[in-house]
Amino acid sequence: MNEKTDAAADLSSTSRSEQQAPHFLRDVIFHGKFKLLKALTPEENTHSQHGLYFHDGERRVDYVLTYHLKKPGGARSSRQSVYLLTENAVARSLRRGHKNRDQHLRRHQAQKTRDSSSLPSTRVADVELGCEGETYNSHEDHKAFRRQEFEGKLRDMGLELEKDEDSKIPGVGFVKIHAPWNVLCREAEFMKLKIPTKKRYEVKQSRGFVEKISSLVSKVLDPLHPHVEDHQPKNIKHLSHTFSREKQHLFDLSDKDCFFDSKTRSSIVYEILKRIKCKAKYSMGITSLLGSGVYTAAYPLHDGDINEESAEPNDRKLLYEEWANYSVFYKYQPIGLVRKYFGEKIGLYFAWLGLYTQMLIPASLVGVIVFLYGCATVDDNIPSMEICHPRNNITMCPLCDRVCSYWKLSTACGTARASHLFDNPATVFFSIFMALWAAMFMEHWKRRQMRLNYEWDLTGFEDEEEALKDHPRAEYEFRVMQKSMSKDQKSQHKMEKLNCRDRLPAYMTNIVMMLLMIGVTFAIVFGVILYRISTKAALHMSSNPTTRNNVQLTVKTTAAIINLVVILILDEVYGAVARWLTVLEVPKTDKSFEERLIFKTFILKFFNAFTPIIYIAFFRGRLVGRPGSYLYVFESYRMEECAHGGCLMELCIQLSITMLGKQLIQNNLFEIGVPKLKKLIRYIRSKQGAFQEEERQKKLQRYETDHFLEPFAGLTPEYMEMMIQFGFVTLFVASFPLAPLFALLNNIIEIRLDAKKFVTELRRPVAARAKDIGIWYNILKGVAKVAVIINAFVISFTSDFIPRMVYQYMYSPDGTMHGFVNHTLSYFNVSHFQDGKETMDPLHLGYRVEICRYKDYREPPWSDTPYEISKEFWTVLAVRLAFVIVFQNVVMLMSDIVDWLIPDIPKDISLQIHKEKILLVDLFMKEEQGKIHILESRPSTGGKENCSRSNNNNSTVAHPRSGLHTNSTKSF
Amino acid sequence: MNEKTDAAADLSSTSRSEQQAPHFLRDVIFHGKFKLLKALTPEENTHSQHGLYFHDGERRVDYVLTYHLKKPGGARSSRQSVYLLTENAVARSLRRGHKNRDQHLRRHQAQKTRDSSSLPSTRVADVELGCEGETYNSHEDHKAFRRQEFEGKLRDMGLELEKDEDSKIPGVGFVKIHAPWNVLCREAEFMKLKIPTKKRYEVKQSRGFVEKISSLVSKVLDPLHPHVEDHQPKNIKHLSHTFSREKQHLFDLSDKDCFFDSKTRSSIVYEILKRIKCKAKYSMGITSLLGSGVYTAAYPLHDGDINEESAEPNDRKLLYEEWANYSVFYKYQPIGLVRKYFGEKIGLYFAWLGLYTQMLIPASLVGVIVFLYGCATVDDNIPSMEICHPRNNITMCPLCDRVCSYWKLSTACGTARASHLFDNPATVFFSIFMALWAAMFMEHWKRRQMRLNYEWDLTGFEDEEEALKDHPRAEYEFRVMQKSMSKDQKSQHKMEKLNCRDRLPAYMTNIVMMLLMIGVTFAIVFGVILYRISTKAALHMSSNPTTRNNVQLTVKTTAAIINLVVILILDEVYGAVARWLTVLEVPKTDKSFEERLIFKTFILKFFNAFTPIIYIAFFRGRLVGRPGSYLYVFESYRMEECAHGGCLMELCIQLSITMLGKQLIQNNLFEIGVPKLKKLIRYIRSKQGAFQEEERQKKLQRYETDHFLEPFAGLTPEYMEMMIQFGFVTLFVASFPLAPLFALLNNIIEIRLDAKKFVTELRRPVAARAKDIGIWYNILKGVAKVAVIINAFVISFTSDFIPRMVYQYMYSPDGTMHGFVNHTLSYFNVSHFQDGKETMDPLHLGYRVEICRYKDYREPPWSDTPYEISKEFWTVLAVRLAFVIVFQNVVMLMSDIVDWLIPDIPKDISLQIHKEKILLVDLFMKEEQGKIHILESRPSTGGKENCSRSNNNNSTVAHPRSGLHTNSTKSF
Repeated sequence: MNEKTDAAADLSSTSRSEQQAPHFLRDVIFHGKFKLLKALTPEENTHSQHGLYFHDGERRVDYVLTYHLKKPGGARSSRQSVYLLTENAVARSLRRGHKNRDQHLRRHQAQKTRDSSSLPSTRVADVELGCEGETYNSHEDHKAFRRQEFEGKLRDMGLELEKDEDSKIPGVGFVKIHAPWNVLCREAEFMKLKIPTKKRYEVKQSRGFVEKISSLVSKVLDPLHPHVEDHQPKNIKHLSHTFSREKQHLFDLSDKDCFFDSKTRSSIVYEILKRIKCKAKYSMGITSLLGSGVYTAAYPLHDGDINEESAEPNDRKLLYEEWANYSVFYKYQPIGLVRKYFGEKIGLYFAWLGLYTQMLIPASLVGVIVFLYGCATVDDNIPSMEICHPRNNITMCPLCDRVCSYWKLSTACGTARASHLFDNPATVFFSIFMALWAAMFMEHWKRRQMRLNYEWDLTGFEDEEEALKDHPRAEYEFRVMQKSMSKDQKSQHKMEKLNCRDRLPAYMTNIVMMLLMIGVTFAIVFGVILYRISTKAALHMSSNPTTRNNVQLTVKTTAAIINLVVILILDEVYGAVARWLTVLEVPKTDKSFEERLIFKTFILKFFNAFTPIIYIAFFRGRLVGRPGSYLYVFESYRMEECAHGGCLMELCIQLSITMLGKQLIQNNLFEIGVPKLKKLIRYIRSKQGAFQEEERQKKLQRYETDHFLEPFAGLTPEYMEMMIQFGFVTLFVASFPLAPLFALLNNIIEIRLDAKKFVTELRRPVAARAKDIGIWYNILKGVAKVAVIINAFVISFTSDFIPRMVYQYMYSPDGTMHGFVNHTLSYFNVSHFQDGKETMDPLHLGYRVEICRYKDYREPPWSDTPYEISKEFWTVLAVRLAFVIVFQNVVMLMSDIVDWLIPDIPKDISLQIHKEKILLVDLFMKEEQGKIHILESRPSTGGKENCSRSNNNNSTVAHPRSGLHTNSTKSF
Repeated sequence: MNEKTDAAADLSSTSRSEQQAPHFLRDVIFHGKFKLLKALTPEENTHSQHGLYFHDGERRVDYVLTYHLKKPGGARSSRQSVYLLTENAVARSLRRGHKNRDQHLRRHQAQKTRDSSSLPSTRVADVELGCEGETYNSHEDHKAFRRQEFEGKLRDMGLELEKDEDSKIPGVGFVKIHAPWNVLCREAEFMKLKIPTKKRYEVKQSRGFVEKISSLVSKVLDPLHPHVEDHQPKNIKHLSHTFSREKQHLFDLSDKDCFFDSKTRSSIVYEILKRIKCKAKYSMGITSLLGSGVYTAAYPLHDGDINEESAEPNDRKLLYEEWANYSVFYKYQPIGLVRKYFGEKIGLYFAWLGLYTQMLIPASLVGVIVFLYGCATVDDNIPSMEICHPRNNITMCPLCDRVCSYWKLSTACGTARASHLFDNPATVFFSIFMALWAAMFMEHWKRRQMRLNYEWDLTGFEDEEEALKDHPRAEYEFRVMQKSMSKDQKSQHKMEKLNCRDRLPAYMTNIVMMLLMIGVTFAIVFGVILYRISTKAALHMSSNPTTRNNVQLTVKTTAAIINLVVILILDEVYGAVARWLTVLEVPKTDKSFEERLIFKTFILKFFNAFTPIIYIAFFRGRLVGRPGSYLYVFESYRMEECAHGGCLMELCIQLSITMLGKQLIQNNLFEIGVPKLKKLIRYIRSKQGAFQEEERQKKLQRYETDHFLEPFAGLTPEYMEMMIQFGFVTLFVASFPLAPLFALLNNIIEIRLDAKKFVTELRRPVAARAKDIGIWYNILKGVAKVAVIINAFVISFTSDFIPRMVYQYMYSPDGTMHGFVNHTLSYFNVSHFQDGKETMDPLHLGYRVEICRYKDYREPPWSDTPYEISKEFWTVLAVRLAFVIVFQNVVMLMSDIVDWLIPDIPKDISLQIHKEKILLVDLFMKEEQGKIHILESRPSTGGKENCSRSNNNNSTVAHPRSGLHTNSTKSF
């Protein structure tokens, strides 16, 4: 295999040299020339806009590859140890496989050093060193050889390269890639890019009343739009068509330099990079080359600087001013510009985030109103009035055995009033509202997406196409190679797939680890419960009722904070674990890697965020037993009970602390702080060289500045955060109507924060085309679905809504809520306490208690079956369950109806697409007839005649009457 | 407007005549020629394959338009009165609008009659006739004028026409349309047809064990495949590419006559027809022309005859033999051939039907097993054993007041045993199984669809494109015209849309009628209930217990049959009503017409089929009161009660009768009988002419034979029938495990029946491209969703499954079912009968009864609250509801998991698509480099140079090294 490649390389280099000077030589000439030039004209740099162009100042740099330069004696700073590892493994296996490899390498090195002067001449000596050094150096040389092969192939594809090994960053070599016009054309055709043509048409505006209103609305909203010039009036549209060199006349080619914008150019180059494979031991694409450290980074360049006042206006600067800026938080985002600069995928993320934020406004408004309604009606609430009434004299049973004593129900007045804030009929309305809101949101997003697809000319583009082009990841290829190596004796070098057996260990590890992690989550939640129980038990010993009450609140709050901290820590841990597990799995493509990672991360983070909340909502206070036979865990701790008002309030406290804390800390600390820190570290590390001074940094070339930026790591973390937030907004909204408001406030910051990150802190990502937000839409849909069920359960089981209804319509003597409190309390005869369970302080309240009350539906002591679950319990349970069924199905049906009523494609868009189709056919028909005209004016032979057969038959029948064409096309 | 058109027409005719003879003249020449030819060589006909070709025997007839020929004195046979109506209305409004219309028409007629001899010369005289006659004749002339205009435009588009007004069918003129090669090429390019290229590649077969198994399986299944030759070996595939004239070299153009098959040719012509508009008062497309009777029919031709032995093999004959044949019922369908002949849309229907039938096989197997399990365990069933036990001595309360008497529980032995057949634990399993089966079916269909999309080269094709091309329906255009007429004073001839106000009356009618129809369904169900109640009440008067039992069965069965008959009748009525309502709505496009029609038809038919069943399942026997206070309807009829074993058995009877009867009668009577009848009528009607003899019919041209066939009316009825059947199979499957078996048997016939209809009885439909089955998939999904909920309720509420479970685990003293019957029966003290309600025959059983029993959960007479609903009732209810929640959510979750686990795109297909993409890029790159090679070998000037700018900069950097291309493309 190796021999073959070498032979091919030899062949190519010879045939190359037949035509012109070999690369290396040309590079030398080139370099020499420019060193000279630079020395002569230092102003050259400003012309080439600090590295945005090749040194000739003409050809744009569309893409940059970087690699390690071996400096004589310079320390090697590995960017990531993972790379090193892989690389070593590759090298080792290569060595193992072929013993004569070294000779080959040496031959090559000799050849290279002979030809090229860009590599230091000390290298030949290095090869002659001992085992350790040799391995290391032969790696370096091997890489150089790969690079040479790869770059040769890039040139074969028509790309133009320029090397810069004398950059101001020591140890880093740059390969700048420029795609000339013909390559751009070719690739645009392959990629089926849709590009606006010269043909324009006017979009009809609806007339009359609607028009007036919409113009009024747009006038009112005008200050909310960012100041990004639209190059064309709103009602004039360009017809778009798939780019094709045969149809070049359709397009406005007056300025070929700007015909493809920088985003398109770089994505075209990236497309070529992805396609090219080095034939090494196993075929290596650009991802493999990056993975094995042959190249250290690959990125397109940013459009220009943001800070310099002198810099001419560029899209990046515009984005920085009009988008990535907290002072414009109230404005719409310039989505078109974002897409133009970052590509469709990132554009869609921000469009989605924008719509989500927008949609949160009505949700938070209604939420606030619901909350205010709760506040306003707190004094009219009969059950809490009854509890708080001074004449209320109900004696409650002790809440634990022996230690606790009897208590008065009126002491629960505060919590009863507070829980009314979150447990009132408006809450039911609000959770139905939010379920429909979620459905509306999904629908709106579908429409917005469709509109963007149309505006961004993606209507004809298939997502599958893009996805299927994904080639195997480096790790996968490496594993396959390893496998085929080990099976070498059986089948020589056959590219194989990884089958189930290869993957079984990884899958097993995955399942075990996932279960373990979920177990850890449960364990931690349980630990917090124990903390609460034990501190509470300790507090019950205390005799002072006021400290008891105060400390009880403290316990709740501290427990919630502990939960929060644990959640925050585990969130990071789980993110890492999920990534590690996915790496273990060795998925084939980047897409499948991403999907598996998302799936795992989502499951873990979801469990992490919601387990404590679900515990409080559905399990706490369910299995507590009854006075005299309380249930215990670990034989000493009683199961937790909710305060008298129900668990809803505690749920609310937990929710608000988790949500607020998570957002504040994760946003501010992690999202702002950590990248800054990383950048600092990266900067300090590279300062080992000589140029710390800011002055010189300003003179850095564009590609050097961008090299200092953090590489783009995908949108997954951004989306994930939003998904969890969406969970908070919808899942338990019945218990926490302020959640949308908090989310709204967070998102207003989030948008600008993310924008800042993309514009200033990350390397420019390669623009990826995408029609939709992919898997995230399904996750949103899933969360919305689960939310309906969870809200149904929260309303019917966590809140007291159903018992109140049941009392009012089935048991109440006068149809009001009066007597409800009494109805929910069962009787307990104190003499039925078993030995050792009666309270130590029976006279705590000052009188002897014979019958005490507790909150449950159980038979009274005087029935045939004392303390059994009563008929009321079953009645309430049946009604609760019935409510769940009705709520779930009605709300789901309503969501489906919303889904069905709102068309996925906005009417105006569908009309416009329709119109464009017709215009396009018209255009082509005209063209067609023009062609025939030309053809008929000259005697027809050869060339285009393939398509006009059987003209001999036409003589008796209709002939294309060329004289008529202009007329007839006008009239139809 | 009219003037303008006329002027344009004049202009065009003048400019036409400048070049060559005008149409009419040419037609005359043409006709004369061929009349002559025909007279000379009668064998000509066999050469042109009975009308498949033009008279020259060369040019294929791709499409046929027919119109009424005005014979002097010949009676006008309107095909449909609707058309006449529209047409008259159009004419009337035209007349109303412009007074000078007549003059214009006359001028034109004069012109026409001057030029053309194909119109009878009596016409000028006709115009001069009185008012009545004038209107009629001017209509005819108006139509002829429209036709002329339309056909002129067709010729402008490059189509070639041949008229035949001397056909053997009197009163019908034919326009045969041929699309020459260059038109086909042009349109194929516009339509973005994907066509196999010359480039072939080998599909890698998986090696080893899997391969062996699959080859074994395919060998076993071989006799099941139809004998349709595959033109290519299975592992060789042609690369497909969108047809483009610039890329003609990619395609195999050796046989241009067969390059586009007949289906493609006709759909191309149809595409052109759709695009062309006559500029009349309002622009008229082909649908408007058809709607207003300018043309009477438009259809492509079938490929040939099926019956004649002499006929050469053609696709239609092959389909007839290998597909539309009951003797091959056990074989797979030749879907590829079906698609080739009928197009993708119909191909998908049959593929779907085939998959559905296939999937029914496992379902019916499991269903039969479940049923057999019921049969086998009927003797081990403790509750029915207890009921049937001879020592069982339970006295039951009378089932109605006064008339009825006490009875022994042991007399219910039979029904108790019978209901065990359908009410056993296996039923629960089966309904879960069927829910998952439905999910699996949907998934499999998605995969099959994807596979077909790939095989049929639809992967790049967008459904939207096709749908958006749909132009407005004739009725819609007419309404818009009417509206713009009435608003004439405001805006001159502005094409307007119909807005909400125009549509309000239609919408209101729609809603009212829909509600009314659903009300009718309910009323009829209620009527049948009353029938049952009254006959039952009458029977209770009878003293003979054996006749009573027999007649009870008779009543049930007759009631079910009445229901069936009503369902069958209403089915037809509702179909008509839905169509009428949709016509009232005047939807804009055919697509929206179809969708609205489907929606309405589905709702009505669904209600119709399932209302009686839902009544029996969920409402019957629920609100019956208790002995002593039974509930009454109309003061004399007691509410129906189920037999002791529960309503499940009655549900089963109703289901089986409805399903079987519906399928047998609808299939055999309606689907086979009615089309035959229609054909007969059509034939008899046209027999009014002279040629009844079969001999002559054989000599009919292809387009004449096809004219006798029924026009294709869409797939809606076929799909609809299957949807209702799918409802039967899934919705109540818990109560009727044999439903899948019945459906399977029906579908095996259905496939061949439909195939026969399409091949022999219908005109060939225009091939429509479609990627999926559209709205039907959503309906299937909806039905499957509803099925889960309904099955949950059937199991928990209709069957006794939950009460048995509750008894076994909560009340049974020994954990067995012993005592269950006793537990479900409440006590009633006979002395508590109110006056006038006690039975007239208290000693019916031979002894005096003090306490009788009845089936309900109520408190005994000796409790504090006698006859109140008991705690057991609430317990059972709660468990029932909980079961519904658990069942629904678990089954839905499982369905979602199935959905998620099975990838939508089969692995091999996705790999192949991936491979094809790479191959295609390779192909183009090679071509590209070939081009550069050519370009570089000659000095580059003009022509293609648009794409190779900035070569002057290349001098210092890499140059495309043309000498290397062949090498480099080989190595990457």
